[in-house]
Amino acid sequence: MDRAPVSRTAEGLFDGVLARGCALVETSDAAWLAAMVEAEVALARAEARIGLLTDAQADAIESACRTASFDAEAIGREAAATGTPVVAIVGRIRAALDGPVGERVHYGATSQDIVDTATMLIARRALDVIIGDLEAAAAASARLATTHAATPMAARTLLQQALPTTFGLKAAVWMEGLDEAAALLARIRSDRLAAQLGGAVGTRATLGSNAPAVADAFAAELGLLSPVVPWHTIRVRIAELAAALGVAAGAAAKPARDVVLMTQTEVGEVHEGVLGRGGSSTLLHKRNPVAAVAVLASAARTPGLVSTILAAMPHEHERAAGAWHAEWLPLRDLFIATGSAAAWLADCLEHLEVDPTAMRNNLERGGGLLLTERIVEAIAPRLGVQGARRLIEEIVHEARIGGRQFGPLVAERFEADGLLPAAEVARLLDPEPYLESAAILVQRAVDAHTGRPRP
Amino acid sequence: MDRAPVSRTAEGLFDGVLARGCALVETSDAAWLAAMVEAEVALARAEARIGLLTDAQADAIESACRTASFDAEAIGREAAATGTPVVAIVGRIRAALDGPVGERVHYGATSQDIVDTATMLIARRALDVIIGDLEAAAAASARLATTHAATPMAARTLLQQALPTTFGLKAAVWMEGLDEAAALLARIRSDRLAAQLGGAVGTRATLGSNAPAVADAFAAELGLLSPVVPWHTIRVRIAELAAALGVAAGAAAKPARDVVLMTQTEVGEVHEGVLGRGGSSTLLHKRNPVAAVAVLASAARTPGLVSTILAAMPHEHERAAGAWHAEWLPLRDLFIATGSAAAWLADCLEHLEVDPTAMRNNLERGGGLLLTERIVEAIAPRLGVQGARRLIEEIVHEARIGGRQFGPLVAERFEADGLLPAAEVARLLDPEPYLESAAILVQRAVDAHTGRPRP
Amino acid sequence: MDRAPVSRTAEGLFDGVLARGCALVETSDAAWLAAMVEAEVALARAEARIGLLTDAQADAIESACRTASFDAEAIGREAAATGTPVVAIVGRIRAALDGPVGERVHYGATSQDIVDTATMLIARRALDVIIGDLEAAAAASARLATTHAATPMAARTLLQQALPTTFGLKAAVWMEGLDEAAALLARIRSDRLAAQLGGAVGTRATLGSNAPAVADAFAAELGLLSPVVPWHTIRVRIAELAAALGVAAGAAAKPARDVVLMTQTEVGEVHEGVLGRGGSSTLLHKRNPVAAVAVLASAARTPGLVSTILAAMPHEHERAAGAWHAEWLPLRDLFIATGSAAAWLADCLEHLEVDPTAMRNNLERGGGLLLTERIVEAIAPRLGVQGARRLIEEIVHEARIGGRQFGPLVAERFEADGLLPAAEVARLLDPEPYLESAAILVQRAVDAHTGRPRP
Amino acid sequence: MDRAPVSRTAEGLFDGVLARGCALVETSDAAWLAAMVEAEVALARAEARIGLLTDAQADAIESACRTASFDAEAIGREAAATGTPVVAIVGRIRAALDGPVGERVHYGATSQDIVDTATMLIARRALDVIIGDLEAAAAASARLATTHAATPMAARTLLQQALPTTFGLKAAVWMEGLDEAAALLARIRSDRLAAQLGGAVGTRATLGSNAPAVADAFAAELGLLSPVVPWHTIRVRIAELAAALGVAAGAAAKPARDVVLMTQTEVGEVHEGVLGRGGSSTLLHKRNPVAAVAVLASAARTPGLVSTILAAMPHEHERAAGAWHAEWLPLRDLFIATGSAAAWLADCLEHLEVDPTAMRNNLERGGGLLLTERIVEAIAPRLGVQGARRLIEEIVHEARIGGRQFGPLVAERFEADGLLPAAEVARLLDPEPYLESAAILVQRAVDAHTGRPRP
Repeated sequence: MDRAPVSRTAEGLFDGVLARGCALVETSDAAWLAAMVEAEVALARAEARIGLLTDAQADAIESACRTASFDAEAIGREAAATGTPVVAIVGRIRAALDGPVGERVHYGATSQDIVDTATMLIARRALDVIIGDLEAAAAASARLATTHAATPMAARTLLQQALPTTFGLKAAVWMEGLDEAAALLARIRSDRLAAQLGGAVGTRATLGSNAPAVADAFAAELGLLSPVVPWHTIRVRIAELAAALGVAAGAAAKPARDVVLMTQTEVGEVHEGVLGRGGSSTLLHKRNPVAAVAVLASAARTPGLVSTILAAMPHEHERAAGAWHAEWLPLRDLFIATGSAAAWLADCLEHLEVDPTAMRNNLERGGGLLLTERIVEAIAPRLGVQGARRLIEEIVHEARIGGRQFGPLVAERFEADGLLPAAEVARLLDPEPYLESAAILVQRAVDAHTGRPRP
Repeated sequence: MDRAPVSRTAEGLFDGVLARGCALVETSDAAWLAAMVEAEVALARAEARIGLLTDAQADAIESACRTASFDAEAIGREAAATGTPVVAIVGRIRAALDGPVGERVHYGATSQDIVDTATMLIARRALDVIIGDLEAAAAASARLATTHAATPMAARTLLQQALPTTFGLKAAVWMEGLDEAAALLARIRSDRLAAQLGGAVGTRATLGSNAPAVADAFAAELGLLSPVVPWHTIRVRIAELAAALGVAAGAAAKPARDVVLMTQTEVGEVHEGVLGRGGSSTLLHKRNPVAAVAVLASAARTPGLVSTILAAMPHEHERAAGAWHAEWLPLRDLFIATGSAAAWLADCLEHLEVDPTAMRNNLERGGGLLLTERIVEAIAPRLGVQGARRLIEEIVHEARIGGRQFGPLVAERFEADGLLPAAEVARLLDPEPYLESAAILVQRAVDAHTGRPRP
Repeated sequence: MDRAPVSRTAEGLFDGVLARGCALVETSDAAWLAAMVEAEVALARAEARIGLLTDAQADAIESACRTASFDAEAIGREAAATGTPVVAIVGRIRAALDGPVGERVHYGATSQDIVDTATMLIARRALDVIIGDLEAAAAASARLATTHAATPMAARTLLQQALPTTFGLKAAVWMEGLDEAAALLARIRSDRLAAQLGGAVGTRATLGSNAPAVADAFAAELGLLSPVVPWHTIRVRIAELAAALGVAAGAAAKPARDVVLMTQTEVGEVHEGVLGRGGSSTLLHKRNPVAAVAVLASAARTPGLVSTILAAMPHEHERAAGAWHAEWLPLRDLFIATGSAAAWLADCLEHLEVDPTAMRNNLERGGGLLLTERIVEAIAPRLGVQGARRLIEEIVHEARIGGRQFGPLVAERFEADGLLPAAEVARLLDPEPYLESAAILVQRAVDAHTGRPRP
Repeated sequence: MDRAPVSRTAEGLFDGVLARGCALVETSDAAWLAAMVEAEVALARAEARIGLLTDAQADAIESACRTASFDAEAIGREAAATGTPVVAIVGRIRAALDGPVGERVHYGATSQDIVDTATMLIARRALDVIIGDLEAAAAASARLATTHAATPMAARTLLQQALPTTFGLKAAVWMEGLDEAAALLARIRSDRLAAQLGGAVGTRATLGSNAPAVADAFAAELGLLSPVVPWHTIRVRIAELAAALGVAAGAAAKPARDVVLMTQTEVGEVHEGVLGRGGSSTLLHKRNPVAAVAVLASAARTPGLVSTILAAMPHEHERAAGAWHAEWLPLRDLFIATGSAAAWLADCLEHLEVDPTAMRNNLERGGGLLLTERIVEAIAPRLGVQGARRLIEEIVHEARIGGRQFGPLVAERFEADGLLPAAEVARLLDPEPYLESAAILVQRAVDAHTGRPRP
């Protein structure tokens, strides 16, 4: 049950709440700089493989990349002159090199090649963390599903108690959603992360007939796919990645929504169990579901960010006049927001305290009211379904008006009318046999979870 | 090259422009009603297969479904009382049946089961049309790529001429984006469309131990997948579908953006070729790119719609208090908007008139200015890259100031400085050999397109 | 308390739930057609005023407009050729006229002038209805605030009971939000709805030096403002309108969210009181908050629609290549969605059944736990605030562990420790005196509501 | 023409391009921390004014606030325990104070009061900068409008040349849009920025009957409005602010879009004039419109951010379980994005180089084709409008086919047909008299701009 903690601490004022998970390590300025430099190294290595550079030249470039100093703030400032940080980065690498080998840095590439490829490297690492957190949350759900496969509780539709279910099935449904989200992200990670190498306009003209070999070697160096053609203006990969992050955040928010509702004072069916968290400075009796709230807050950022990425898809000609730049921050924010939602959710579910007694108490509050469906069915052969419904509606109304419990009232009336003996009524009003189909579903879901290929 | 027209005519005031494609037939009120009734029929058939109904009962239900009259307007009005149209639909089916078989209609299902399952049926049909239109657009792009593999034109970054490319490569890039979008939608169609059968709260309680068999048979009747557990509150499928439609719309908008830019009066490289379209009532000389504009307008609706679907993912408990209803119209609108974008794009590209002369004229307007990169490389061995750059910058500046063409000026200066003979300069300034790598890419892309499994 | 019903019945399958309010009458195809024709009539009238047409000509045009038949479906279909429905409309008006007067129809105008101006007319009428519904909802809130100014209930933060408040203050807060939303829409209606008359490219060239007079007369005919310059490419008005509709929908969703939460089975503090609504076909005991759910579902559509309008703001040159068309449906949908939210909310609040006993029971469930803040303050002079807090934390913990009520436990401990007599503890734990400041706020809010200029 | 520079340099990797303007100084972590501390000071001051604290106590608190050290990173980390940074801030202030006065810090307030009030202070300062930048851009537009009131150029609809206009009118339209955006933001600044003081649940219970006086004094200390009731769950102010920022970004993007289109190689009508910016490392001839591109990229982030804020409006009960936290980052990002768009636009327009010769050359490229409207009108009295149109369509077609200029062809045909003398044709084809109405509009717009109350 123990796992290496995947979440990291905050670096900014709002980050403790909203940027847990992959944010600090995987999507920081330092990480982006490192990824861009990694792309430059891989390009030199690839060109050496094909023979466009000597190995010594590639070594020199790599060594310069490892030793040059890259200061995000200064590079960010210089980027204002050209619109990308790459010119300043390449300049620093060249400055760290003696002689003509400097000219071979970045050979055949354009700024967008480096930024786009770095984005894919960042994506892979961030996805590793996010998928890990989603799997941890799914595993916690699976444990809850198994432990509580037979724990009855009220199912609620439109927030009204409707019929009995089990907490195990509720947790199994969370698990399935999280597994689907993890699988979606894993598919992006394995099938859609591709290196970018198009040169100034996507023709790879500088590389001439060596272009295909260099492009393939470049991708291989980085462990990325080699695309059919440069995707500098085909933003389908970026959009699929962004959309998948948005979907995953939504999947993480579903259990969090349920947890928040179940921790309500009047419901009290679960509690977040991290000691010392969720207290209030002035309201000493409070125990706020901080983790679930942080999931919801983090996830809430994502739909708008996805829409920005989608709206930026139609790039103009061979490099967009704004739409490409418009992707940068929303994509980074998506890693952070979805990552935060996943990390907080794993924390929330791994420490969830479940109160089966509160669940049963809530269920019984209706005194059998939830099982009207079942009673209608039992007397329908005698009264017809419409007749049965009318009778039950009458009794529901009578119970409401008279402030009486529904169960005893039904038993009385049915005995009086010779419809059913009290024992049969009691049997019908017992939720547990009713939950057979829920148990089947939990089993089916847990089996599927266990058998699922780990992404 | 001929294909059955997949687009349909308008039914509303703005639909001629914004609702082409799958809108009229596949997503109309009538289509939704039919799909919901189809789900009720399939449920009866599935229950008969398992033995919960006799075949005669299932026949009677099917026959009632075929003969009952469903009026969208009246049903819509009645839906205000319960929040879904299903109660009114089931009521009409029951009214068309004699005796107790009426009670077996909708047996074990809840309203959401019917709406969600109908959504999946609608999705399949709409996706068929949309994928068809995307493939038609990709096929048109493939033809353009092949025909114009050697047609030089200016590549433009940030809308500035940058280097030569070919129109064939531009079209190949369009094609690849459209193929990726079609593949994404095809994956949704094959892997993510699942029947919904959960009963009142997702436990399938009414069906008891028959539930798994009924659920599988129900899905089989409809040609949909049978999910591990009911997905009534796991909206990952819906969100993936919506997101894929958003991505596809963005992919369709990319070529449309380029077409609009290329049809500019000052550029004039392509024209939309549908006779009688795009004229202006008062401005007789105009030839508006109506199809490309309609693609952009249709696609522009989608990012916001996707964000609405994503934001609605965290459903409460066993049925959302609003978030489920909030999906209905945005999802329908996404079919319409993406469908319209795809249909208009196919039309646009299938009738695109290409003007290679205009392309060459535009390319030559810079008189070789585009090829500075190549000239720098040629003289770098003599002057060093930095020196070469400085010299070329000087000549570029001189050309600008003096209003002279860059090519002749370079030839003069290089001859004077003994750098390169005029013939060599002319050779370097000829775009065509420069385009070798573009030709390789076109070939690679067209091969991939041809070899792609038809979704 | 009675008011003319502003909501209308459905015309589509999902409209009963999602398109109440202004949808059917004010935003239908027929309404848009009528508004476009009204703009053409006003243009003729304005030109007659200035002397560009004779009165007889203007009469003839108006008469043709009144008698010509406009079929949305056919006009929508024809619009596909030019990208706007206006060409087909003007054609029909001209066809209804004899002789050269036909040429004076639409004189000096372009299609966008007619569509934009019609949008403003539609906006005014839709805003009338939406503001009316928001005011009705605010009035219902004001009545609830007054009636329940002294009805204590639990205030909840992060869905945890926190401190006592009154239902009156909760309703007053709803009221203030609705009043602010209505005021925002009213400001748009009075200050931002302007006629559009720019001619083919916004220069009003055809009208020459008569242009200013015609533009002013045109606006006056329609009761719209006359803008400084044509706003055909300045979409600030449209964006402000759309954003205000989005804000208003959010303001309407706040009380609906609270109502849904308060109708939970475990809370039961309010119920929707429309007879025969909210029942479930199979679950007879249920009473779903259909109106509040419809508010939430309708409002949930709006953020994405607003984002589409905002993203479409940067129109190209003198008429956008897609961004203008992209506004049409989202803006219409915003009227429908916000209108539906407002109409359902008025219905919900006008029929809300309040259960003060349930409120008090929920409040007392904590047995005084909510009032820890007050007790800390009472003993702080003796123990210091930190000491007081520690003591209370101890007692809270003891109550939780021992399953005891907090109040009696405090009384016991305080008496034992000689801190406070039991009567004083009881006084401190009585929520009512605590609610003095709430009462002040309700009074202040209701006074502000009453004194507010009716928009 | 000189003004104090309102834009600041970058602090992050992407900030040079995407976070110009108010970002660094007004919306940094340090600024938020300072604003929260400022709110605590104002609260103490206000309570001293009313007599709840002695002046000495308020002095001590203020002094502690000035001397305590606030480290964003550490505070952010601690915030994870409670969900807000305020607990950690108040703790630091208290730690800097001796004795019981520490308990008077934050008296009567809750965390949300401090965060919300700080947001309003940040908003005021950020709006000052953003409005300043929008006004600078409007002033630059006004200068361009005046200077080029008589500079003819082609007006373009759907990116097709349509009719002549003037560059002055184009700039006047930009100006009007920017003025409207600045006015909208100024209205928010003056009418909607209110202090927040509600206490734990919005009742202001701790302050009892002093609450109104304290709340008013608190607002007065900060120069903010005092609201009718606490707005902790009425997010209309936040939503209006966010929406206005989104609208302003869209208004800024319109001129940027036009600039990008006008700088196209094939159009060349304007250039960005900041020396050393916009060059390309490899493509020496390029002069990228970096400022306009940065405007578009910055503005493109905003619609999605606005949608997030709108979607978060329906807060639950007396403090939202996630929706409040969800506002923080999108609102900050909106200040940054809109601020960046405004700052870059001011820079772009203040340094715009206009090429009237290129404008005229483009206009004449059509050889009079643009003026068909005018010619139709001239011969309509003889041929009827339909007849005139048919003739002109014929000549347009003939010109296209024959590669001839339209003007001479018309002159020939009209002379041959005795329709109009060549001199009259030449007069009609001269764009300048045509531009009379444009000049009127420029004058009207500039007058309105000059007379506008400075926000």
